Amino acid sequence: MARVSQEHLDARRRQILDGAARCFARNGFHATSMQDVLKEADLSAGAVYRYFSGKEELIAAIVGEVLAEVHGGFEEAARSSPPPPPDLLVTSVLGRVLAAKEDLTVDGRPALPGLVLQVWAETLRNDDLAAVLREGYGAVQETWSRIVGAYQEAGMMGPDVALDHVARTMMATAMGFIAQQALFGPAPTEILGEGLRALTGMEDHSSVNVPETRPN
Amino acid sequence: MARVSQEHLDARRRQILDGAARCFARNGFHATSMQDVLKEADLSAGAVYRYFSGKEELIAAIVGEVLAEVHGGFEEAARSSPPPPPDLLVTSVLGRVLAAKEDLTVDGRPALPGLVLQVWAETLRNDDLAAVLREGYGAVQETWSRIVGAYQEAGMMGPDVALDHVARTMMATAMGFIAQQALFGPAPTEILGEGLRALTGMEDHSSVNVPETRPN
Repeated sequence: MARVSQEHLDARRRQILDGAARCFARNGFHATSMQDVLKEADLSAGAVYRYFSGKEELIAAIVGEVLAEVHGGFEEAARSSPPPPPDLLVTSVLGRVLAAKEDLTVDGRPALPGLVLQVWAETLRNDDLAAVLREGYGAVQETWSRIVGAYQEAGMMGPDVALDHVARTMMATAMGFIAQQALFGPAPTEILGEGLRALTGMEDHSSVNVPETRPN
Repeated sequence: MARVSQEHLDARRRQILDGAARCFARNGFHATSMQDVLKEADLSAGAVYRYFSGKEELIAAIVGEVLAEVHGGFEEAARSSPPPPPDLLVTSVLGRVLAAKEDLTVDGRPALPGLVLQVWAETLRNDDLAAVLREGYGAVQETWSRIVGAYQEAGMMGPDVALDHVARTMMATAMGFIAQQALFGPAPTEILGEGLRALTGMEDHSSVNVPETRPN
């Protein structure tokens, strides 16, 4: 076998994952065969099986990639001091994740939200995938907890709150908004941003215009 | 055929829906047959088909029932003036809906959250079910918009916010928390309550103890 560059290997891997994601988004996991993936990626079985043993590994890789994108976004935000307020933080990370997969469409509509719902439902019968998700979300929750701690240190949030409870609540908001995109159709993340801004401004603001927070 | 009381008809309908929900929660929609439902409900085909034409109608009826429960909870809250703050409102309705289905378990764990994820994923391939969901969530969003309007009238929230954007955000929070219950395991709704309280108290509260709001 000819020696190939890392760049080539990465591009091939990308080609396979994107093809698989399109198949899954269009027809669902169960109705998609490895044959469908080979055809969609325009590669031979030999080329694909060098990278992935089968559908399960493809799904896990796609999920891991999206969760790493989410985690990376929040990690970056956690380095600001103080971190951006929740509305800016959630919308910027959500926007970044949706943008990273904007080429993945079904019938001209973004397919990522529907793919997320499928993955969630799939965990009910697939313990390996459930473990991948728990690990990925666990990392996000840890980062969010640190962000909440930074809000408290900056005096932006009361000190008596369990960090992970706020972290779970923030994650719930983003997860629910992704579900809504799949159920009700695409919607700009600014909707969620405005809603969060109204919530965090309850009782003491008459205007919802919050200036962008800059890192120190 | 003997004439039967409305009470008897209702009880029979309940028996079928509960049996179907147990089957769907345990094995998923696709792996569940009408034979499985008959067996689980301990009824004859004749008895079941008098009420439901098939699996699709059963799923739609279960979804409609849960969404009506959600809607009813928020409608009740909307009648208070001012309405309870978001943390109390979301946790009380979520708690009510989860309690209404607490007998529905799989392996001793509440099955409703997993059933919700299945229904969401199912809408990707089932336009009738998608329409049932859109209608149900539409009613909830309308009620939430009225609640947000009441927050504004009571001076609890700034006046420049689009009602339906806050409504969608509140719904996203509850939807995401339900997804978390299915993905990470059961968790008390107080987690979400505490998180929302911390968010709405941002910047101006050092304590998170908010007294319960009483209707006027």
